[in-house]
Amino acid sequence: MKLIVKDMDIATGGILIAILNEHDAQKYDMHPGDRILIEAGSRKITAVLDVAEHDKVVPHGKVGLFEEVLSALKVHHGDEIRITLEEKPVSLQYIRKKLDGKELNKEEIHTIIQDIVDNKLTDIELTYFVAAGYTRGFSDKETTLLTKAMIDTGEKLDIKDGIILDKHCIGGVAGNRTTMLVIPIVAAAGFTIPKTSSRSITSPAGTADTMEVLANVSLDKKQIQQVVKKTGGCLVWGGAVNLAPADDRIIGVEHPLSIDAEGQLLASVMAKKGSVGAKHVLIDIPVGKGAKIEDKREAKHLACKFIKLGSSLGMTVDAVISDGSSPIGRGIGPALEARDVLWVLKNDARAPLDLRTKALTMAARIMTVKYSPKKAAEIAKEILDSGKAYAKMVEIIKAQGEKITDPDKIPMAEQMSDYRATKSGKIVHIHNGVISKVARIAGAPHDPGAGLYIKKLVGEKVKKGDVLFTLYADSDQRLRYAVEFLILHQAYDIR
Amino acid sequence: MKLIVKDMDIATGGILIAILNEHDAQKYDMHPGDRILIEAGSRKITAVLDVAEHDKVVPHGKVGLFEEVLSALKVHHGDEIRITLEEKPVSLQYIRKKLDGKELNKEEIHTIIQDIVDNKLTDIELTYFVAAGYTRGFSDKETTLLTKAMIDTGEKLDIKDGIILDKHCIGGVAGNRTTMLVIPIVAAAGFTIPKTSSRSITSPAGTADTMEVLANVSLDKKQIQQVVKKTGGCLVWGGAVNLAPADDRIIGVEHPLSIDAEGQLLASVMAKKGSVGAKHVLIDIPVGKGAKIEDKREAKHLACKFIKLGSSLGMTVDAVISDGSSPIGRGIGPALEARDVLWVLKNDARAPLDLRTKALTMAARIMTVKYSPKKAAEIAKEILDSGKAYAKMVEIIKAQGEKITDPDKIPMAEQMSDYRATKSGKIVHIHNGVISKVARIAGAPHDPGAGLYIKKLVGEKVKKGDVLFTLYADSDQRLRYAVEFLILHQAYDIR
Repeated sequence: MKLIVKDMDIATGGILIAILNEHDAQKYDMHPGDRILIEAGSRKITAVLDVAEHDKVVPHGKVGLFEEVLSALKVHHGDEIRITLEEKPVSLQYIRKKLDGKELNKEEIHTIIQDIVDNKLTDIELTYFVAAGYTRGFSDKETTLLTKAMIDTGEKLDIKDGIILDKHCIGGVAGNRTTMLVIPIVAAAGFTIPKTSSRSITSPAGTADTMEVLANVSLDKKQIQQVVKKTGGCLVWGGAVNLAPADDRIIGVEHPLSIDAEGQLLASVMAKKGSVGAKHVLIDIPVGKGAKIEDKREAKHLACKFIKLGSSLGMTVDAVISDGSSPIGRGIGPALEARDVLWVLKNDARAPLDLRTKALTMAARIMTVKYSPKKAAEIAKEILDSGKAYAKMVEIIKAQGEKITDPDKIPMAEQMSDYRATKSGKIVHIHNGVISKVARIAGAPHDPGAGLYIKKLVGEKVKKGDVLFTLYADSDQRLRYAVEFLILHQAYDIR
Repeated sequence: MKLIVKDMDIATGGILIAILNEHDAQKYDMHPGDRILIEAGSRKITAVLDVAEHDKVVPHGKVGLFEEVLSALKVHHGDEIRITLEEKPVSLQYIRKKLDGKELNKEEIHTIIQDIVDNKLTDIELTYFVAAGYTRGFSDKETTLLTKAMIDTGEKLDIKDGIILDKHCIGGVAGNRTTMLVIPIVAAAGFTIPKTSSRSITSPAGTADTMEVLANVSLDKKQIQQVVKKTGGCLVWGGAVNLAPADDRIIGVEHPLSIDAEGQLLASVMAKKGSVGAKHVLIDIPVGKGAKIEDKREAKHLACKFIKLGSSLGMTVDAVISDGSSPIGRGIGPALEARDVLWVLKNDARAPLDLRTKALTMAARIMTVKYSPKKAAEIAKEILDSGKAYAKMVEIIKAQGEKITDPDKIPMAEQMSDYRATKSGKIVHIHNGVISKVARIAGAPHDPGAGLYIKKLVGEKVKKGDVLFTLYADSDQRLRYAVEFLILHQAYDIR
């Protein structure tokens, strides 16, 4: 069928789409979601068909094309192109198979993941895959294959020096910027630990957002390899390199219903580790009231799954179940957390003790791949106390592209407001969820200087009117929104 | 947040969407799928947020609005509007609950269906609901609630005369235009039988497409009620009235993966029956090689489910498991099938016997609500043989808006091609799927006169070169496509 191009003047940034008028689609027995081959001269591409109900969008005899399709075919508004119906991707049959509760084999899983990476599946099709994995569950074998497929369909770091270590935290605890301390300590001890992190999705700061206050984090594969070769470590944003890219599209359709399938979570985490070539991985699973995982038994189950999956991928996994009941560190928000990190590294009196303690524990735990636990703990403490960890952090910051290395030069948001205790007593709990939400409402992570700084910790006795934390925001309005939220939601339990 | 309207110059025809620039979305912590309240003066609506990755689509400080949103708010390109974040629909929590394998209650199911009807759910969210129903299954109780919710969220026919009968066929058999015979026979016997039918989705003709050759089928609720009051029956397109409208959107997301969840199917069918006020329903379940249901045990299981569901809705359901192994009637395609129907009604020598026999059986079976099986069969035969059924059909055609009542005046496609036996022997099977696909390639149902006319039936002996069927198409090209398809796919088994 020959049609005339209508430039829709839109870029989708994802899947290739072509829009037909409803009557043309009917005439040629084509339906939304059908795959069509579009040919313009010698160029051809496969696009997903969408159907316009109104002539205003795409008139009879025309085909509406988006930016990406136009440039791939090198056609313009008014040009003639030819379309024919193509078979749908075979991966749809495999998704259907999983929906029917059957186990998928290696080739089937690889095909699905490759089609996800190549943007060949529509949102509806991808959602069926996620729903199938969530309701039917993935077997251990499928999870391993899923992880391998995610690794194989993305880029891989090529680092040859030494045994590569890595760490990951399941998240859900406000603050808790442990990674930014563990990396310099472990790298200073002579290990290779290339860390890629995500930006925040629902938290007030991801490690990438926080590190970005101090250094450039958007490095490409080659740059990362150079930084790691030079310093033994790195703290970069994973999104800038194409490591296990299937994950991002999957997360996109998980978000609307906050789906978090276990097999999917395991595969996502371990694929990122596999992509950097990690051989030993430490997984931090914070547990406690208000954390992502509230039940210790569930945490243990997840730990076992990680260890098992690691083993099937040729990695040793060590899992630590840590206390996730309250925020760790005092700053919440990129700049405030970055300052805490540098204070710990510089052994500043203002350094939050809980963050320091947790970082030392985690760093020592990772180094048990080479040393006894006692020796590893001694090494970690010596490196931090002596300033070697700070020196290593400065080295990493400079190698990635320096912004700030002095904690007291980090700019904070200028509007401040104290949040005070409404009664006297002992602090028995600080709500991670409320603290994180307030910091986000104040502007974190988009405004790096926004967030809050905790003045009173769990276990402390307070009097009515004492300042519990200070809010930071770039605008009066944001500050007011945060204060209003705190009227309705309780951040502290005082008894 | 205040933003300037950008007219996207597109109508979606469905859900209300507003598009923000990626950076604006980030700044205000908004994500694709979030619900936002848009206010323009005193007018306000809730839309689903989408995020544009490219400035070209929606620049900073602007909000891209589609036709439907623009007209609801009465705003134009360049106007200022205000947006605020709203809670997501509570139905998402219920969909999540079903995904987790938990049973939904009345209120939860009603809320989901109402939100589907009100176009409040995105494709991704709706897909999760369909996937949840498919993988977790609906309990009998849930199926009943689903059916009731579908009925309650749509229009209902208000017909007061007598006990209302209805029939439904599961489909999958080429030809098989039984309904267009059953309705006039049963209506002529004095029963009330208001029949709404669908147009074809994947078959060469739906009952609505076929009836449309003879009469207008797009009647509104009031017109349908008048036709039924006058004639006792009708044969109209259900899509023109808003009966159980949730179904259409659900089918839209089922199509890409050909999902056909049992609970969903049961609810869809029975909701349409409930919406017309039916008290007695006959379900025709064709079974056989190449039919939708190939296994007799599966057919019996489905029959039981229909009977049980009907009973919980206050309807008596009678289910007939019929022979669906081969096409029924000789014409395939709207005009060819309509001609078969009129030939049967007029007791023409050219009338296909199998279609006549099946129609009589079905009509008699429905009338057993009042008569003994023997008496019902006699009445059906008398009505058909005496021409009363034809007279009733003419009455219905005239009441709906007459086009044609003489079978020999139905226009057929002008291009024809005979398909001949490639060997001699006995016909043991005719493939429903291949026959249907060929008729569609020839142009049915879009070109009403296209399709094919079967010359040789199962059981007949043929010689190599005998004409098995004749293809009808509006264009040479379509005819050629159909012939090419038949080179690769076998329509007849001859032994």
